[in-house]
Order: sequence, then C-alpha cells, then structure tokens
Amino acid sequence: MALRIGMIGPGGMGQAHLDRIRTVIAGGEIAGVSDIAADNVATVSEKYGVTGFASSEELIASPEVDAIMICSHGPGHEPDVIAAIEAGKPVFCEKPLTPTADAALRIMEAEQKAGRRLVTVGFMRRFDRSYREMKALLDSGEVGETLIVHNRHRNPTVPAHYTWDMAINDTAIHEIDTMRWLLEEEIVSVRVDKPKKTSHRFEHLQDPLMVIMQSESGVWIDDEVFVNNQHSYDIQCEAVAELGTIRLSDQHAIERTGTLGRFNTLTMDHNQRFYGAFVTEVQEWITAAARGEHTGSTTWDGYAAACVCDAGVRALETDGPVAVEMIDKPALYS
Amino acid sequence: MALRIGMIGPGGMGQAHLDRIRTVIAGGEIAGVSDIAADNVATVSEKYGVTGFASSEELIASPEVDAIMICSHGPGHEPDVIAAIEAGKPVFCEKPLTPTADAALRIMEAEQKAGRRLVTVGFMRRFDRSYREMKALLDSGEVGETLIVHNRHRNPTVPAHYTWDMAINDTAIHEIDTMRWLLEEEIVSVRVDKPKKTSHRFEHLQDPLMVIMQSESGVWIDDEVFVNNQHSYDIQCEAVAELGTIRLSDQHAIERTGTLGRFNTLTMDHNQRFYGAFVTEVQEWITAAARGEHTGSTTWDGYAAACVCDAGVRALETDGPVAVEMIDKPALYS
Amino acid sequence: MALRIGMIGPGGMGQAHLDRIRTVIAGGEIAGVSDIAADNVATVSEKYGVTGFASSEELIASPEVDAIMICSHGPGHEPDVIAAIEAGKPVFCEKPLTPTADAALRIMEAEQKAGRRLVTVGFMRRFDRSYREMKALLDSGEVGETLIVHNRHRNPTVPAHYTWDMAINDTAIHEIDTMRWLLEEEIVSVRVDKPKKTSHRFEHLQDPLMVIMQSESGVWIDDEVFVNNQHSYDIQCEAVAELGTIRLSDQHAIERTGTLGRFNTLTMDHNQRFYGAFVTEVQEWITAAARGEHTGSTTWDGYAAACVCDAGVRALETDGPVAVEMIDKPALYS
Amino acid sequence: MALRIGMIGPGGMGQAHLDRIRTVIAGGEIAGVSDIAADNVATVSEKYGVTGFASSEELIASPEVDAIMICSHGPGHEPDVIAAIEAGKPVFCEKPLTPTADAALRIMEAEQKAGRRLVTVGFMRRFDRSYREMKALLDSGEVGETLIVHNRHRNPTVPAHYTWDMAINDTAIHEIDTMRWLLEEEIVSVRVDKPKKTSHRFEHLQDPLMVIMQSESGVWIDDEVFVNNQHSYDIQCEAVAELGTIRLSDQHAIERTGTLGRFNTLTMDHNQRFYGAFVTEVQEWITAAARGEHTGSTTWDGYAAACVCDAGVRALETDGPVAVEMIDKPALYS
Repeated sequence: MALRIGMIGPGGMGQAHLDRIRTVIAGGEIAGVSDIAADNVATVSEKYGVTGFASSEELIASPEVDAIMICSHGPGHEPDVIAAIEAGKPVFCEKPLTPTADAALRIMEAEQKAGRRLVTVGFMRRFDRSYREMKALLDSGEVGETLIVHNRHRNPTVPAHYTWDMAINDTAIHEIDTMRWLLEEEIVSVRVDKPKKTSHRFEHLQDPLMVIMQSESGVWIDDEVFVNNQHSYDIQCEAVAELGTIRLSDQHAIERTGTLGRFNTLTMDHNQRFYGAFVTEVQEWITAAARGEHTGSTTWDGYAAACVCDAGVRALETDGPVAVEMIDKPALYS
Repeated sequence: MALRIGMIGPGGMGQAHLDRIRTVIAGGEIAGVSDIAADNVATVSEKYGVTGFASSEELIASPEVDAIMICSHGPGHEPDVIAAIEAGKPVFCEKPLTPTADAALRIMEAEQKAGRRLVTVGFMRRFDRSYREMKALLDSGEVGETLIVHNRHRNPTVPAHYTWDMAINDTAIHEIDTMRWLLEEEIVSVRVDKPKKTSHRFEHLQDPLMVIMQSESGVWIDDEVFVNNQHSYDIQCEAVAELGTIRLSDQHAIERTGTLGRFNTLTMDHNQRFYGAFVTEVQEWITAAARGEHTGSTTWDGYAAACVCDAGVRALETDGPVAVEMIDKPALYS
Repeated sequence: MALRIGMIGPGGMGQAHLDRIRTVIAGGEIAGVSDIAADNVATVSEKYGVTGFASSEELIASPEVDAIMICSHGPGHEPDVIAAIEAGKPVFCEKPLTPTADAALRIMEAEQKAGRRLVTVGFMRRFDRSYREMKALLDSGEVGETLIVHNRHRNPTVPAHYTWDMAINDTAIHEIDTMRWLLEEEIVSVRVDKPKKTSHRFEHLQDPLMVIMQSESGVWIDDEVFVNNQHSYDIQCEAVAELGTIRLSDQHAIERTGTLGRFNTLTMDHNQRFYGAFVTEVQEWITAAARGEHTGSTTWDGYAAACVCDAGVRALETDGPVAVEMIDKPALYS
Repeated sequence: MALRIGMIGPGGMGQAHLDRIRTVIAGGEIAGVSDIAADNVATVSEKYGVTGFASSEELIASPEVDAIMICSHGPGHEPDVIAAIEAGKPVFCEKPLTPTADAALRIMEAEQKAGRRLVTVGFMRRFDRSYREMKALLDSGEVGETLIVHNRHRNPTVPAHYTWDMAINDTAIHEIDTMRWLLEEEIVSVRVDKPKKTSHRFEHLQDPLMVIMQSESGVWIDDEVFVNNQHSYDIQCEAVAELGTIRLSDQHAIERTGTLGRFNTLTMDHNQRFYGAFVTEVQEWITAAARGEHTGSTTWDGYAAACVCDAGVRALETDGPVAVEMIDKPALYS
C-alpha cells in the first residue's frame, strides 16, 4: 500500500518533489494538494490528476491523506505543521521550519504533547552520499577527533532582492544544519567577518562573508558564503581531524581535455549538485513514514538552526562572536 | 497503476532487482516469481509476499502479470523470452541474452513477427551517468569525430572456474556493448593480444588480456581485461576525439589525506560501481514498459554482442584479427 | 667569473645551500666560511675545501669574498648584515631577518645610508613555481580582484621545545611573507582563533591555531597552522577572486592505485616540498648579485614580517584582532 | 675547475643547452662552438663570447675543450662522435644518435676500441622526475612485475613536412627509449595499427597511430602517437603491474575554477613539459663528465632505439608484428 501524500504549497520545489514521487521513488502516491493561491491548486491538481483541497486544514484532515509535505512559504509553516502533528500524521516540512525560533518552540510543544517525532525538516544535505561518507568515516573514529571544518558555499549569482540576512537564513543555514549533524553537537557562537567585497554584484550587498562558528566541544568551523562568484555552485567541506583530513570531491562524472587543459565541469545550482540527495531524502521519508518511523532532521534541528541563524544575523552587525541562545533539549529529541 | 512484474529465476541479481523495485523505484510491483528450482520459488515468494508460479510458462501467461524480468541462467533464456514476446509482454532479460548468436536470431524472428521491440537486454552501463555524459558530449559534435577508445576492465579477483572464454563472454562483453552504443556503429573485427601473465592467480589462466577491436568507420578500440589485479574493480574509458579527450572519472564521493598521502577509495565490484546504473536501468524499463515503449539494449544489441563475442573467443586462439560475422540489421531495429 | 660567496653560520640549512651552489647552481663559488663555533669552521672549511675565517667580520671584509650568505641563528644576524651593507656587499640572510622589528629598523637605516638594496631575506616560497603561477595569474587581472585567501600550513610533528609563539614566528611567518608578496599590500591586523586541540601532541601546546589576517584593501586571509597532524607536510593556498579561484596543486609526480584506492604521496617536510624553490632562490640571488641587482624579499619585507609577527604573538593572548604597527615605507623600498 | 664544453651545431636545442649551462647549471663553461654554417658560428660565438672554431675537427682536437656536445643534424653525428671518442673526450649527442643502426654499430666499435663509455645520447625523459619516480617504484618490487605499459604521445600539431616514418623515428622513439630504460629489457617486436584518421590535418598523414610493442619478457606496450590533437602536448604513461598501477601525473602547479569548471592547463610542447628534465640531463652529464664517469643513455641505447625504429618503420607497411633485429649486446654495455 502506497503512502498517500498531501502537499501544501506546491511551488517549484514542491512540484519537483511531486515529480520525484511519481517517477523515481517507491512507496508513495500523491493524494491531494492545497495552496493559499486557489489557481495554483487548480493547475497542480489537474497536472497530477489529484484532488485539489480548498484549504490546508481540509487536506490535513482528509482520511484520504496519510502524510503531509509542506512546501509553502516559511512564515506560513507553523499552523500547518501543528495541525498535522495534532492529526498524528507524519509531516515533511521544507526548510526553514519556521522563520523564528519562537515558532519552532511552539511546534516542539505540540510534538512533545503528541509524544513522538512526526516532523522532518527538509535539510537535504544529510542525504547526500558525499556528506554521508564523510560522516561515516568521522564516526568510525579512524581519523580521531574532528578539530576544524572548512566550508565553502558559492553560488553563481543571486537576485536583487537578496539581502545579507538571507546570507545567513537562506544560505549558511545549510552548513549550520550540516555541521550540527556531522559533529553531533550544538553550535555555541557565531561571528561574521566581512572580506573585501566583489564588484560584480549589487552595491548594497556585502559579498562574500566569512561565517565563523564554534561548537560545544570547541570545533572551529568556517563557512565562506560567496553568492555571486559568477561561475559555479561550488559546495565544499573539509574536516580536519587529528590523524587526517576528509573533503568532499567534485563528484564529476567525466574529465575532459581541450584547449584549456584538463577540466571537469562544476554544477550551477543546488538542484544539479544535490539531485541525488533530494531523491534519497524523499525516498527515505516515505519509507520511514509508511513504517511509522522518523528520519532526517527533527523539529529540534529546525529550532536549533533557527537559534544559530538568529545569532548569525545579530553577528552581521556585531564585532566579535555572538553567543547562540537555546533552551535545553527536550527528552523527545535525545 | 503499478506495472505488475513477474520474475523468472530470482537468484542474487534477480533479488537485487526485486529489492530495488520494492524500495527505490517508482511504478512497479512484484506480481510473482518462478524458478526451475522449486525451493527457490518457495523462499522468494514468501520473502516478498508474492505468488510463486509452478513454471515460467504459467507466470508469463498469467493475467496478473504485465511484464517479465528474466534473471535465470543464460542458456535457459531463449524459450522464456520467446514466450513473453508471443504473449505481447515487455521483457527485461539479463545479459547475455543468449549464449549463442543463433539463439538470438530466433528471438529476433519472434520479435519481428510480433512487429515491435519487446525485449530489453540488461546492459546496465548504458544507464550509468558517466558513460551517458561521455556519450552526450560525443554526440554533440563539440570534440569532433571519435578516433580511439581506451577501456580498462579490472577486477580484484575471479573464482577458479573462470576460463579465458569467460574473459570475452562475461567480462569484455560489457565494453563490447558499451562501445557499440557509444559509437552507434558495429564492431567489425576483434584481436586478442596476450601480455605477460600475472603470477598472482591460476596457472591455467592467461590474465591480463588486451582485446583490440575495430569499428565500421575505423575507430580503434582497446580493452584491457585484467581480472585478478588484487586490489579494485576499476572501470575506465577514455575516448580520444579529434579535438579533445573524455574519460570517466573515479566518481569518488570524498578525498582523504593520511599517512599514505592524498587518496580516494576505488570500488570493489560491479554492484558498488554501477549501483546507480542498475537503479536507473530498472526504473527506466518500468517507466517505458508501463507506457508501451522500449528502452535500453534491443534483441539486435544482444545478437550483435554475441557475434562479437564469438569472434573474440575465436581470436583467443588466432594470431591477428578475426572478422565479426553478422546478418544485416532487420528494419525493426533501425 | 663566478661570484665568490662567504657563508656565516653554515649549519644544516647553510650546508644545504653550499651543496646546491656546488652541484646544481650556476655562477657561484664558495670562497670561505665563518662560525661562532670554531670547530664547525674547521669541519665545514675542510669539507668544501675553502678558507675558514676566524670571524664573520674578517669574512665580510675579505677581498676574496664578493657576497655574503648568513645562515646563523636569528638573534646574531643584525651586526653581520649591517657590516655587509657597510662593506657594500650583497647579503642573503636566512629568515627571520631579525627577531625584533627594532633590529630590522636599524638594518633599514644602514641600507638607506648605503643608498641601495643589498639585503635579500630567505623567504623561499616566492621562488616556488606554484606560488609564482598563482601570482602571475592574479597579476594578469584575468580573475578580477582577490577577496579571500585560505592557507594551510600542516606539519607531521614538531619537537617538544616548540612553543606557541613559534607557531607565529617560525611557522605562520611563511604565509605572512607570501601573502604580502602575493597581494602586494600590507597586513593590517591579526587575530588568532583557537580550535579544539589535538590530543596527539604535547599537553602544553595549543595546536592547531587559526590565524586570521586582514590586508590594507580588506582581503580576508586565514592560515590554519597545524604542526602535529601526524601525517604530512601539507601546504595549501587558495585565492578566491571575483571571477574564479586558484589553488596550489599537490604537485605529485605520479599517481598510484593499490588496495587503498587511487593515491599520491604528500611531502613530509619543507626540504622535500620546496626543494625547487630553494634552488631557484639561491640561483636567482647569485645571478642578481653578480649583476649588482636585487632579487627576492627586501629588508622592508623582513621588517614588515616581524611587525606582523609581533601583532600575531600579542594576538595569541588577546580576544579579537590586534592592529599591526609599522613605520611608513622608506622610499628605497617603493 | 669548470668542465670546458665545445658545442657542435648550436641551433635551437643547442643554444637552449648553452643558455642552461650559463644560467642554471653548475660546473660547466662554454669553451667554443663550431657549425657547418659559418655564419652561425659567428653569431653564436659572439652571443656567448666564446671561440668560434672553423670545423668540428678543430673543436674536438682543441686542448681548450674537455667535452663535446653535438646538437647538429642527425645524419652528421657519426664522424664527430667517433672523433670525440678517439680524442678520449666525453660526448653528449642529441637524439637520434645516428639515422641508421649501421652507423650506430660503427660508433660502438670505436667506443669498444676506446674501452670505456664516452657517449651519452640525449634521451631526456630518463631525467624527468615523474618517470624516475615511476621507475624507482617499479624497481622496488612493491607492485610486483610490470605486465602492461600504456603510453600517450600527443602534440598540438606538426609541420607539413612531417611524414609517417617521423611518427616512429622522431616521436615514438621517445617511448621506445623510455620503455627500454623503465623495464630494463629489449623490445622484440613492433606492430603499428592505424585508427580512424583525424580530419584536422594533412590528407597525406595517417594520424593517430597505435604502436604496439612487446618486450623480451612479454610486457605488452602501447603508444598512442597523435601529433595533431589541436590542443596540447600531453605525455602519459601508465604501468600496470601485478599489484597496482602507476601513472604520470599532469604535474600542474595550480588548479583553477572558472566558467568552465575546475581545470589545470596542459603543456604545449616538450620544452615546457620537460624543462626540468633537460636541466637535470645536462647537469648530470657535466657532473659525470668532470669525474670521468658516464650517465644516461649509452651508444647501445642509441643503437637499440635505431633497431626498434627500423622495425617500426617497416611495421607501418606490414600487417602484424615485425621482429626487431639487433646484435648481441657487447660486454662494454652490460
């Protein structure tokens, strides 16, 4: 029996998930869609031949729907996530879980009341095979303790409305979650350094940034956020451990020679670079949801990421590190 | 509606396909199994909770089965493939399609009578992303005509019953099919050179071999077949074209440093190296079969591979090149 | 006519230079040696078949000596360098030029009085082909302005007497000089962050360190100083520019496969990694000295490196960045 | 005392050697030049400020000349090499030693009469650090016996007068010598296969070629000779041994990213690729000659290369392998 999935807010990312479910993922079927934009409901429900619900409440409540995917705009997530929890249905919510840590706290309360983890936040890098190999090797103890992690998050370009708090909340948030997952500990402080600015983009935007974080045990983490590098979506991560280093490869399929020398192409966006991670993420969620199990990032992870982002945004205007403030971790997430 | 798949001969490879269909592939469901070994039918049908058929004939004839996967031993393929064709059901048959070119000819006759391509032969490399990128680039014309292709097919080790005709029929057959597909032309001659023999394996086995092939248009193709290299399953392919070269990368996910220097691991067998290719192969076959379309290698490809292998086996005992003999390509496969 | 070179303080590094001059460098010959240790003078003068001078003063004054190489301990450099300047003889002085910025100032005064640049400080990385290619490409303007530079300075291990100010004065000093040369601007501040400490070395030593520097124009520079990584001398440098990145390669001569996968060895110390740079450094100095020209790092560079090191050492005990203090650059060095 | 070198036939390569001796090599000085073109003698002797000799005989006989470098056209080598041998002077002769094996035999007779090895043939790859690392590793026995060696000799382009025997005598001759040196055994047969021809060069020229050789112990060797690849001088060599493979790296100094992806440039000609090998070759020859020792390729090596080339040229017009014919190796060269 396939897991019957209702999707709230099927925009670009949501429809990409629906396409995956239809074409390359086992065990799920699309049961219905809802959206605050009624015309989008009409379009998408016709495209996929599924029921269009008049509201997210109706979709969540429907006996035809086993599990919920939320791909709507971040500020609208909270009530839908809570409704899904109260309905006892597994919910996959795109990142950020909520725009504020407070809202994430309220979701945690609902989930604790429900007594089990129902929420998976869409941090897809946890499902990327390269990050997973890195983590497996660090977990094995073979290279000793991790001391430093260097990250690079480079984009070809961003639109004009991109502001520098988005460099934290939309861009660095990926490394924030990935580092917490990789190291299995919390980030306790964030500092933002401002390198020389590229002239190849908006006057108003400080780009690149160097985000410097520290973990509970003292691991030093940097994240070069450079969103207008003009040439590639280049994600790098190197863990420096006591006995060796591990870094993500480019993972190119072919190598070429030509007038320029020997080369391999780089990806141009996250859909290209993390195609496999998105597929695995949704596949593993469906498999787990169908079994009543949890997989991936929890509400706690969504909350913690929001807390680190809050500190990061304050750090943009502060000299020196800003401490991350968060509550003690509830037992449900230990 | 999922495609209901009946599997004939579910051994190791067959069950790997069944596992994929259950866990990471969309659109298919397992409808039943049959096997010449009755106890295997019992075991597998229980494991997957599906009907065990008393014979492949019954399975093929069953109205509960839409499409057939054949993973039995090669010499048994012919009658089942022909029965599936006569039943008008799409059939995925593991390689080799048949042990002899003659048997493949009889399947082609059945398929021509049916008037449409129903058979897909399981040459999974056509579904590997690295070979596909290489082919797309060659097809684009960007690097000019292909002149030479260098292949390496290296295995850590093979069992004692491996004989040198298996170096052609079981090992080089992969490059034979891949080269025909990559270049979109036939191989016209095969020569086998015998390098110095490794001392790290059976006295009776000439290992490595250099298989040298020529295509219709004169492309020079080599294939280093070295099946006891003691260390890795290392598949390489480099196309030398007029304006540049293209080669498969190692496709490793991470790079490490340690006392040995900087390194990346290599895969140890075809399941590891071609994991993604196997998934894509079965996914695309299910998707196509459900639509009444064809994908992947045809019966003609299976026949042509058998003809080239025949020449290759004769070349083992011949000085100089052996011409490949095959019939003209029937219109159905143009 | 070969340049007649007198060497002061021929220890390990000094004799390595003498060996190079004898065996793989054009245009120089060893004219004499002196040392505060009389027995070393005897040993070395006999080994190379050259005059042993009773003091550095006599060696510098000798009409048989055209140019001076100083390889003695850093605190003893000042009087010899000044004497050589006053004698109007070109002098190659191993780094650090002087242990304090004040001493370097006095040398600058002597050189300004002499009216020409006579001193070359032994920062060999400026002669390394990889750094030179990187600089040539940055200078070409092809990749736009440099915004960030990431450095890694990793050693297998250091002796027990290594203290954390040596992490600045002996280790990071290489990146300090190289960055000033690469960017052609001064470093204005230094901060030192302290990552989690490796357990594989002395309890007393904070290792690794992250040294964060800023240049006049705002380029953000990091330097991971990790001197007990247990496995390799791994020098890395990546310049992040507006339109592309440039990084040093491993420069390995061969690549291997084996049970570990595909690998290349890394160097184990600076003599291995910078062998070619040392040869080029001494060759270019001899060629320039014979022509009455200057090459390589100047006294100003030695002074500036000392000033940045001073700030770096203070930064070890300070939260946040420490400003670098230096005088205005004298006209002689512009 | 510097070795006083007389050069015969200082064209482009010869003057490159003279420049090296003057600027980056220890222990040699240019004592004089001669040339069949009198005006070149005038030009070169003035350029380097050295004596111009009226003939090579006078130069060889001069008491001011300790050792001879011959960089004249190949057909003129024989009498000068023999005269140098008879004068008891070490002689460095550019490849090919002689255009025919017969002429090389006569040189060997002269050298045997002299009773010691005086001739070094200018096969510079033996001095390349990457080939040397490969050989050292093979010699160590760590990877077992060598079974196969794959070579690639690719040039951007060749002039219109390049004929296909030059593909053997001028191009493949480098791999012929290098393989003999690497494996320390003779090549016993040569076959030439003709792949599809590039359309990007002369109609009359079969390009690329695949030269297939076999060594005494049965090592299978290929050499892809592709001299109009339109993009780079790309020299590759991979030894496939029983327990691992070793291949030359690109040896690039830097890696870049840009709109094309991640890349490193390739060299464009042999002077760029083998710059270091040329320096080491001449340095080691001067050092050895000054000590009365021999280094590098012998007359036997020059003869053996000529014999393999003879077989290779015949193989151009033959189907199948052509046996290499050579005399037994004289005791002087064992």
